Amino acid sequence: MPKPDQEHGYILVIEQETAMRHWLVTQLSGQGHTVDACDVLSVGLECFRAGNHDVVIADYLSLKAQNSTFLKTLAEEAPDTPVITVCSGDDINNAIGALQNGAVDHLFPQHLNPEVLGLRVQKALERSLLLRQNRQYRQQLEAANTELERSLELLQEDQEAGRRVQFRLLPPSPFEIMDCVVTHRIFPSLYLSGDFVEYFKVGENKLGFYLADVSGHGAASAFVTVFLKAVTNRLQRHYEKKTQVNYVSPSRVLADINAELNAMHMGKHLAMFCGVVDLVNNRLTYSVAAHYPPPLLINDGDVLSLAGKGLPLGLFKEVNYEEHVVSLGERFTLMAASDGVLDVLPKGSASEKEKQLQEIAMHVNSVDDLVSALQLSKDAALPDDVALLVIKRA
Amino acid sequence: MPKPDQEHGYILVIEQETAMRHWLVTQLSGQGHTVDACDVLSVGLECFRAGNHDVVIADYLSLKAQNSTFLKTLAEEAPDTPVITVCSGDDINNAIGALQNGAVDHLFPQHLNPEVLGLRVQKALERSLLLRQNRQYRQQLEAANTELERSLELLQEDQEAGRRVQFRLLPPSPFEIMDCVVTHRIFPSLYLSGDFVEYFKVGENKLGFYLADVSGHGAASAFVTVFLKAVTNRLQRHYEKKTQVNYVSPSRVLADINAELNAMHMGKHLAMFCGVVDLVNNRLTYSVAAHYPPPLLINDGDVLSLAGKGLPLGLFKEVNYEEHVVSLGERFTLMAASDGVLDVLPKGSASEKEKQLQEIAMHVNSVDDLVSALQLSKDAALPDDVALLVIKRA
Repeated sequence: MPKPDQEHGYILVIEQETAMRHWLVTQLSGQGHTVDACDVLSVGLECFRAGNHDVVIADYLSLKAQNSTFLKTLAEEAPDTPVITVCSGDDINNAIGALQNGAVDHLFPQHLNPEVLGLRVQKALERSLLLRQNRQYRQQLEAANTELERSLELLQEDQEAGRRVQFRLLPPSPFEIMDCVVTHRIFPSLYLSGDFVEYFKVGENKLGFYLADVSGHGAASAFVTVFLKAVTNRLQRHYEKKTQVNYVSPSRVLADINAELNAMHMGKHLAMFCGVVDLVNNRLTYSVAAHYPPPLLINDGDVLSLAGKGLPLGLFKEVNYEEHVVSLGERFTLMAASDGVLDVLPKGSASEKEKQLQEIAMHVNSVDDLVSALQLSKDAALPDDVALLVIKRA
Repeated sequence: MPKPDQEHGYILVIEQETAMRHWLVTQLSGQGHTVDACDVLSVGLECFRAGNHDVVIADYLSLKAQNSTFLKTLAEEAPDTPVITVCSGDDINNAIGALQNGAVDHLFPQHLNPEVLGLRVQKALERSLLLRQNRQYRQQLEAANTELERSLELLQEDQEAGRRVQFRLLPPSPFEIMDCVVTHRIFPSLYLSGDFVEYFKVGENKLGFYLADVSGHGAASAFVTVFLKAVTNRLQRHYEKKTQVNYVSPSRVLADINAELNAMHMGKHLAMFCGVVDLVNNRLTYSVAAHYPPPLLINDGDVLSLAGKGLPLGLFKEVNYEEHVVSLGERFTLMAASDGVLDVLPKGSASEKEKQLQEIAMHVNSVDDLVSALQLSKDAALPDDVALLVIKRA
């Protein structure tokens, strides 16, 4: 509770009896208050409106004579201003009437002792100051709140708009190629994602794809995904132009991205799982740049954890990535996730979590199954972005 | 001011005199209050600590007997709880002592009338409830404030990190090529900028440059600048590789960016002023895609507003851009600004503002002069991003 920072107030005395008015003014002035005084209520009201006093002391007989109109008006115009009534008589009903009509205190003749007067005024002053300070503090808080909300909304809208642009860069889900269906989902930990997924047709019967996880998350990392998209978009258009091209080298794609990322000097690096699915020759060619957890391939019911390692992209100038080739069954599921997925799996060691993912992978038909197995929801507060990719031939 | 939502309180009566205690309990209960009562202060204190009553009514003679220790303890432990003292005697000094020691009110024998008692308790209750509600409301506001601040900080840090990455994409300023100095500055309206500047050496004695202004501002527009950087970085490396290349076509650069931007489907378009300065043959070749205001060329003291128009990039599939060639003086200044600059110029019509810029351009040696002429500061709240580029041969 803030304590009033002053003990002297600005007081208005309205008292018809001259001697009493003088006594009140003398006492209150002597106690350090600033005092205005007048003898009739109508003048008192004008005076109050001009001065906005902290406390009003009014003679109750005058108030009673005009049916307490003054008290009602004051309560309406200045609800925080305390009124103390005084009364020369000794009728308890006067006190009742005054208090009922909004006075905070009523002084009887025996109260018209300098010390009691001072203490009563002090209480009223304290009330008035407390109310005023409370209101000011509340107004400041409310203003700060409004301002904060406004700033937050501005940033949220900005990030929301950025998110919409970023999500436009993602490929369609589901995406069909021959008898194969590709689905993906990204759950950013904030608005913008540092995880990214891309896939596209290469020639007539091949699927190129990657899943990328930029270091960190949020706007800074999201920038790198835009850069990635620009690079791969160009690669893709390059392949499309040369109609005869039916080969894309994942290790070459990684090396290209690495070179361009280094040239950009964004101060960011990323992990990537990049591959080409050959749907005619039933073969997956892939390369790995610091991607974890290992992608899973379910070939006719058997789970294979895809081996392979490599340095992250964007850290070193010259990096060569290994290229791996595995056979695909007639029916297969290829499932990859960024390391953010480890945060949403039940607690356990890294190898326990890998095992959990393998179990889930056995029953996954599309990314939707994966999302529900992981109990991921749109509004989940995630410590890191989560990217999920499922390529399925049934 | 929130009004108390209840008029009945939880009251503690501490009164040694049995008849008076019974009378108080009976009256207050009859008026709807919940009342606890006891006869000694020590028991009263325990009772208060257990019940946390809204108002305490205590007999002043007891309080006085123990030197008002109870009042002081209560003021410390529960500063918002009002205490009303009652007194069978008629000694005004009792009232003074009670009020001085923190009682909010003192009731004399003639006040021990049911109605006055009720009104006095009502006033105390109102004070207690107001204080409580004020505190609760303040606490809610403070908690909301803290929460908002936390969310805002999170987003601000995120944007700040994005901004750092974005600014790493900008070229060095100043940048020297032969006897020419290039400087630039970008003032984002939020954290991230939709304006972007790039320049680089082409061959031995040419300078390629552009100034871009993406529609909108903030994260969504900043994404497009990353894309731009990726495209032009590649173009630049492309030229660097072919050591013999000494020609870059601005209109071709615009057409390339347009094609790639369309392929990205980001839903964003941009204005651009792109050029090549040939420092040996003293020639500027440039193209304009919806750039406004017109760039200014000061050739040996004469101001030339660079003509040229073209559609924005990223809206139409096939666009051809005109290419313009102008001669450069022995000494020249080339100055370009995004349209955000119009917001920071003194009010006036578009043509008046163009004239203002021309006047400023006459005295500009580097972007610093331009910044001070425009009175731009780091913390200026700008409605739109402002990008400034100055190329100067002295």
